[in-house]
Amino acid sequence: MENIVPIEKKVLSENDRLADDIRARLREKRVLTLNLVSSPGSGKTSLLERTLQNLNHRLNLVLIAGDVQTENDALRLTKAGGRIVRPIITGGACHLDAKMVTKAMEGWDLTGVDVLFIENVGNLVCPSSYDLGEDMKVALISTTEGDDKPLKYPAMFRRSSVLVINKIDLLGLSDFQLARVKQHALQINPALTTFEVSCRTGEGLQAWYQWLIASVEQKKRTPFGS
Amino acid sequence: MENIVPIEKKVLSENDRLADDIRARLREKRVLTLNLVSSPGSGKTSLLERTLQNLNHRLNLVLIAGDVQTENDALRLTKAGGRIVRPIITGGACHLDAKMVTKAMEGWDLTGVDVLFIENVGNLVCPSSYDLGEDMKVALISTTEGDDKPLKYPAMFRRSSVLVINKIDLLGLSDFQLARVKQHALQINPALTTFEVSCRTGEGLQAWYQWLIASVEQKKRTPFGS
Repeated sequence: MENIVPIEKKVLSENDRLADDIRARLREKRVLTLNLVSSPGSGKTSLLERTLQNLNHRLNLVLIAGDVQTENDALRLTKAGGRIVRPIITGGACHLDAKMVTKAMEGWDLTGVDVLFIENVGNLVCPSSYDLGEDMKVALISTTEGDDKPLKYPAMFRRSSVLVINKIDLLGLSDFQLARVKQHALQINPALTTFEVSCRTGEGLQAWYQWLIASVEQKKRTPFGS
Repeated sequence: MENIVPIEKKVLSENDRLADDIRARLREKRVLTLNLVSSPGSGKTSLLERTLQNLNHRLNLVLIAGDVQTENDALRLTKAGGRIVRPIITGGACHLDAKMVTKAMEGWDLTGVDVLFIENVGNLVCPSSYDLGEDMKVALISTTEGDDKPLKYPAMFRRSSVLVINKIDLLGLSDFQLARVKQHALQINPALTTFEVSCRTGEGLQAWYQWLIASVEQKKRTPFGS
């Protein structure tokens, strides 16, 4: 739709400005910020539940949970031990934008926070275009979705730094091949850090926790202003 | 984003005009047209592969396969017996629109065609807003996606006429409850016709085939212009 392009550009540049403000605020407090993106049902909320249960005693974790409708995810995360969980209901919009995140962060004192997780709307296309001020996008894919997804939705995998392959307990029940999905993802983005996990059984999650802890430590060491 | 709304309205009304043109053209030839929508990896292509393999001898089926990138789905459908399969690569766009479908249908003689399947981009949000001139939207959900999806993405289920619940061979391997997903979906849209299938094992597909055949017969009986 050619006629929407100039407006879309304007919206994205306004979004980038707000995202830079968010990033500056988070950088000042040395908060590692991760924007979780995936199809609906890949396991973003399950990964965060597990992470809260296992790292809450060690790291100060806060969360923003976005959804088109319902606060179900925010409720699940609170139940899993999230001390600060702010919901965003987009009311139809297919992605979070920096304006929504700015509003959700209003009056938030981030002193002492180690990680801010932003759980995006379940959508493998649109959230890839919207910077929310995060350090990294963490993409999830589950083994029941088909190993061709990185090739079919390349922008999301190109703009993510981490790929978490979830539901490895269901491997062998479909044509999904771990080696193939990794090959496809790395072909799109050779710099991806990948994890293979099952949020149901817990398999593989230790590596994810260790990576998180190391990333927090690295963030704390980063000189302010860089 | 308030400033995008007037443009979005203009785009949607232009889309509706093109969709009405498509609908008139299909109605003249009594072609049942189904717009398949779901998350990535729910099984739209698998359902179409099975349908081709089982009904190709009985019905004249043609297909349009949309994807953000690659013609993989169109190739799979051709391999499964699709005699006419036209691909649409959206090149980043998160949904099909009526303009893309109009272009894909250029020079197409639809005489004698029973069903046109349009496989949309895998996305549970954006395709719900775009009429492609179809008779019905057919939404798919797989049992590995979580039974809360109808509540979280209500527009898609409200605007669909049919819900195909796929991957029932994987029931019991997660918390997904068939009764709960149906309850949630029917709460959003009490008029939904539902099917429970496994495109992998073939279970439940007979009911889908019979419904398709009956829907084609009904379409042929519909007086022209109604």
